[in-house]
Amino acid sequence: MRGPRKLGRGVAIVGAGSSRFGAFPDRASREIFVDAFVETLASVDKGIDPKEIEALYLGCFSGDLFEGQGHLAPIIADWIGLTPKPAVRVEGACGSSGLALRQGIMAIASGLYDLVLVGGVEKMTSLPTDRVTDALAAASDVIYEAAIGFTFPGVFAAIATAYLDRYGAAPEHLMRVAIKNHENAALNPKAHFSQTIRAIMEARREKTRQRGGAIPNWRDEMDFLRDPQANPVVAWPLRLFDCSPISDGATCLLICAEEIAREFTDDPIRVVASAHASGGALASWDGLTSIPAARIAAQQAYEMAGIGPKEVQLAEVHDCFTIAEIVALEDLGLVGPGRGAWATAEGVTARDGLVPVNTSGGLKAKGHPVGATGAAQVMEIWHQLRGQAGARQVGGRDLRLGLAHNIGGTGGTCVVHILERR
Amino acid sequence: MRGPRKLGRGVAIVGAGSSRFGAFPDRASREIFVDAFVETLASVDKGIDPKEIEALYLGCFSGDLFEGQGHLAPIIADWIGLTPKPAVRVEGACGSSGLALRQGIMAIASGLYDLVLVGGVEKMTSLPTDRVTDALAAASDVIYEAAIGFTFPGVFAAIATAYLDRYGAAPEHLMRVAIKNHENAALNPKAHFSQTIRAIMEARREKTRQRGGAIPNWRDEMDFLRDPQANPVVAWPLRLFDCSPISDGATCLLICAEEIAREFTDDPIRVVASAHASGGALASWDGLTSIPAARIAAQQAYEMAGIGPKEVQLAEVHDCFTIAEIVALEDLGLVGPGRGAWATAEGVTARDGLVPVNTSGGLKAKGHPVGATGAAQVMEIWHQLRGQAGARQVGGRDLRLGLAHNIGGTGGTCVVHILERR
Repeated sequence: MRGPRKLGRGVAIVGAGSSRFGAFPDRASREIFVDAFVETLASVDKGIDPKEIEALYLGCFSGDLFEGQGHLAPIIADWIGLTPKPAVRVEGACGSSGLALRQGIMAIASGLYDLVLVGGVEKMTSLPTDRVTDALAAASDVIYEAAIGFTFPGVFAAIATAYLDRYGAAPEHLMRVAIKNHENAALNPKAHFSQTIRAIMEARREKTRQRGGAIPNWRDEMDFLRDPQANPVVAWPLRLFDCSPISDGATCLLICAEEIAREFTDDPIRVVASAHASGGALASWDGLTSIPAARIAAQQAYEMAGIGPKEVQLAEVHDCFTIAEIVALEDLGLVGPGRGAWATAEGVTARDGLVPVNTSGGLKAKGHPVGATGAAQVMEIWHQLRGQAGARQVGGRDLRLGLAHNIGGTGGTCVVHILERR
Repeated sequence: MRGPRKLGRGVAIVGAGSSRFGAFPDRASREIFVDAFVETLASVDKGIDPKEIEALYLGCFSGDLFEGQGHLAPIIADWIGLTPKPAVRVEGACGSSGLALRQGIMAIASGLYDLVLVGGVEKMTSLPTDRVTDALAAASDVIYEAAIGFTFPGVFAAIATAYLDRYGAAPEHLMRVAIKNHENAALNPKAHFSQTIRAIMEARREKTRQRGGAIPNWRDEMDFLRDPQANPVVAWPLRLFDCSPISDGATCLLICAEEIAREFTDDPIRVVASAHASGGALASWDGLTSIPAARIAAQQAYEMAGIGPKEVQLAEVHDCFTIAEIVALEDLGLVGPGRGAWATAEGVTARDGLVPVNTSGGLKAKGHPVGATGAAQVMEIWHQLRGQAGARQVGGRDLRLGLAHNIGGTGGTCVVHILERR
């Protein structure tokens, strides 16, 4: 197979914005999207006339199943005043807006457009929870996977079981991912989960202290997280706090041809790699502890950017479940095989660690409105590289290179973007 | 608004293939797609190694609602052996594969790929008919249109009513479109409707003759088509034979960078225009007798190709209902405003007319598996320009320029492609 060639034209990100992520049962996806769009316009340092935007690429998994609304792109375009500009919906399950970004990049590189809006949206909370699980299962292979009860918690539980068995890791390693990402989300005003696991544990600690008891140590905290009341098993070994929530939300990115980026900002962020690989059904994988499409997309992204994984300074990875973050670290080459579980426990991926991962809170705690997730990951990297990530800003280093890793379905879609600040 | 700029790189179509269109309730979309893919490979004059294909762009409206299967692109990629190549689903309702072709063209023009497979598929007959109508209504605005009972037969009936009123045309003008397209479909071995209206009428004529009665004249035939038993009203003035059927089917196109096209064929067909416009809800239109996005996309396509409508020698237009073909003729500038109904009756759009339209049988009679339709239109133009359209080949002229017009929803999406044979 040929690797990806170079783009005919460089592309930069000059704006980004997001709605809050959370449960907004009374709002339609188009309304939530408007929030993201308005913030995106305001984020452009030198201002922008929205009439200059030439096209919309919209990532959405299934308005069809969640809201009964297909054909969402022209409706969204109308609500943000873009009609009759071209508006295209791109679908790759939970990788939809990573894919949409990639198509927007190609549209600019093709020479047809200079300035493109990329967005992602999902409105998931209108359905009862069990129907959300069914709708999400449509992202797997409904003939060979969903039909035999393999919904996503089941799939990732199988991956976790295989991982724990192969490398001798423990459920506590998974929980450390959840704790880290909840802590990051607590510093992200857009995140779905503002009350973190740590806050819950601290409240318990305070209560113990007031009663005159001993302050619990790490082992005691883990006891709490093993408590079937506080943190019930969803699909063993995954418990409630191992799973990302069902969220509503939207995110936008404003991208343009590199040669005009400085019309909009003195601090554009270049897209130095945009790679995409597809994957077959689970049954075709060579073991369950690594996602083949992710490895391939990562390798192609590194080739395209001309860098290796050691040069990545921070990453947003697709932690739909805690085990997914651990596997992602390995598929991206950020740590060696079997090291993902320990890297997290050792603080390598903490905000002050060697390679901060999911400083936004990740899908796990920022929330996972599936169609918006890929764009939201890229927005976090954009903010971090520009030093605009507020209380969760990674400090103590000159940030130059960040990576976003967005997965759809059971690895059917994987998109990896690498951004660079010069 | 800026018009579309030139593509950075020329693109040609070097292969095309299709499944049969019809009702195949026991086959999944992936199986139907394989038929189209196999025929596409066989259509490449100098042969092709499928391993050379670098990406898939798949148009599909809603596997989600029709089959319970979202995230279809990587599944289709797996079934045709493309994994791990990038596979992207593009959705623009009934304009999905016209859009997919446009994204494939941009992907090549971007410099990332040289050889791309574009496909479209829809599997509609697994659901009961009333649920199909509901699913299709998800392509309209579900808050402002579908919620008030405005499903697609209703929308196009309103357009027809407005048209008949404004221009003094009659339901018989609509029926002439149906008769023409049924006659064309009878010559298309892939078409859903092999028994044409004309065949039904001829059988009636034969029966009359056997009884010794007078052979009916044209007025009598129209009487038959007004018969509420034979051709009941669906939404006045649209009757059964005015509506395209619910079909299953898939179509593929193989496209490549122009500079390598002759590796595959000595007779490549160039894409000289690819234009796309979006449209707002019906309520935003300026009257109902013209689709705004179609007019804009057509104008941009002519600019891009450097031609005017008079140079178009044949066209496939989006005749989801007979009235839609009449309006399309006008939106494309092939005839003047208010002339569409008479142009058909006068034979202008017949196979031997001035501008043959829907020689394939159109959506009306070839069938309308919505996600496949845009690609199938382009396939017909490709075959006609290459002189490979068999019994329905347009003769008596040197065919050089053909146009395909693909609409999604209530005009939310419109894509126009112009193909040239040199």
